[in-house]
Amino acid sequence: MVGDKGSQPGADRRLQDLGIQLPAAPTPFGPYVETVQTGNLLFFSGMLPVVDHKPKYVGRLGRELDVEAGRDAAYTAALGVLAAAKAHLGSIDRVTRVVRLGVFIATSGDFFDHPRVADAASELFRSIFGTEKLPVRVVIGVTSLPLGVPVELEVIFEVA
Amino acid sequence: MVGDKGSQPGADRRLQDLGIQLPAAPTPFGPYVETVQTGNLLFFSGMLPVVDHKPKYVGRLGRELDVEAGRDAAYTAALGVLAAAKAHLGSIDRVTRVVRLGVFIATSGDFFDHPRVADAASELFRSIFGTEKLPVRVVIGVTSLPLGVPVELEVIFEVA
Amino acid sequence: MVGDKGSQPGADRRLQDLGIQLPAAPTPFGPYVETVQTGNLLFFSGMLPVVDHKPKYVGRLGRELDVEAGRDAAYTAALGVLAAAKAHLGSIDRVTRVVRLGVFIATSGDFFDHPRVADAASELFRSIFGTEKLPVRVVIGVTSLPLGVPVELEVIFEVA
Repeated sequence: MVGDKGSQPGADRRLQDLGIQLPAAPTPFGPYVETVQTGNLLFFSGMLPVVDHKPKYVGRLGRELDVEAGRDAAYTAALGVLAAAKAHLGSIDRVTRVVRLGVFIATSGDFFDHPRVADAASELFRSIFGTEKLPVRVVIGVTSLPLGVPVELEVIFEVA
Repeated sequence: MVGDKGSQPGADRRLQDLGIQLPAAPTPFGPYVETVQTGNLLFFSGMLPVVDHKPKYVGRLGRELDVEAGRDAAYTAALGVLAAAKAHLGSIDRVTRVVRLGVFIATSGDFFDHPRVADAASELFRSIFGTEKLPVRVVIGVTSLPLGVPVELEVIFEVA
Repeated sequence: MVGDKGSQPGADRRLQDLGIQLPAAPTPFGPYVETVQTGNLLFFSGMLPVVDHKPKYVGRLGRELDVEAGRDAAYTAALGVLAAAKAHLGSIDRVTRVVRLGVFIATSGDFFDHPRVADAASELFRSIFGTEKLPVRVVIGVTSLPLGVPVELEVIFEVA
């Protein structure tokens, strides 16, 4: 998955190589900000699958939405993380580690495919930053999320 | 919202100016502590809307409680954060940034006013610390919280 | 609970004295890692009550499982944290502080014994690291957890 260290392209370059176009950086829905850096840690607000400040999906997994919708929601929110990181850092090449990936999934009690949904975000980060920067991960099924979306990500990066 | 930098009062002074009296610092309900500082980061235990170690509200939003009760619960818990910070730091003037505000809201699945509830905590922090110290925010609807309370906050401060 | 400072044994020694045998270090269920260290902070993936990579308990508290099962699940997951820490650090003597203990509990809405469940993890950490290294704690009741387990821990250590 990751090239040999000598010729390893940066994260910005990998985005290009994969043909991934980042969306506009997300903007807050209230009195908070999208990113806070303290020391080398970059904290992000809970990232939702929104497009143009509107939810791309509304519903719960195991009810109104299936796993594929959940995976696309997680992928969309992860793109938002990258867009917010780029807005904060100038270039995501400055990301030295994905420290933590939290994945909150709105679901009825009888849904158990959380990992497949979370993997969609994990796989995007792996393809951009490489296996050696993979984060710890925390996956939780919850009652409901802001705007009624099915997935919310909470991410911490280590940055140079 | 925030005065010009030259004449900006400290956070302790703003509390006074706003006539806000902090409650006694919260005390644990088990074998843990209310605050841990590591480097410049101050972590807080999940802060509940308690008064005199007893829950001010019991119930879920969208069921037993309405948005106004949720907002007051969030405000009450946020006062507990400030009281715990003052107990740890001596003065909340030492807070250089509100890094993260997590808001867990006990709710049935059909409640979607999370942001209005969370805003009550955000607005208190903004009025005390100013817009330039606003945190990232993560808002989640959950099944139930300790003591049956409707709101729990999880906060990280950066301190000098 | 904690001996006088002069003769205080290290955490590895306490494990031995208490006759606690750590399990094999947990391994991921997807594209993430079990531990990430950044500076002096050691983040862990959400730790589940698994034995040999399989869930020891499946179900929710207040429904299929009672408090004692929940406590054993929390204890089992906490052993996984210690095993992952040992794999990362070589020796858990290098843990200078348990910073944060997050406890997610799968539950129906009418369960309120969260603290007793969480205490099982807190008490293990206290017996190994001592009262002076107790963490902040955040306890949340959620809809469902990966693999259908009743408890998931999210932990941060400060390490030397």
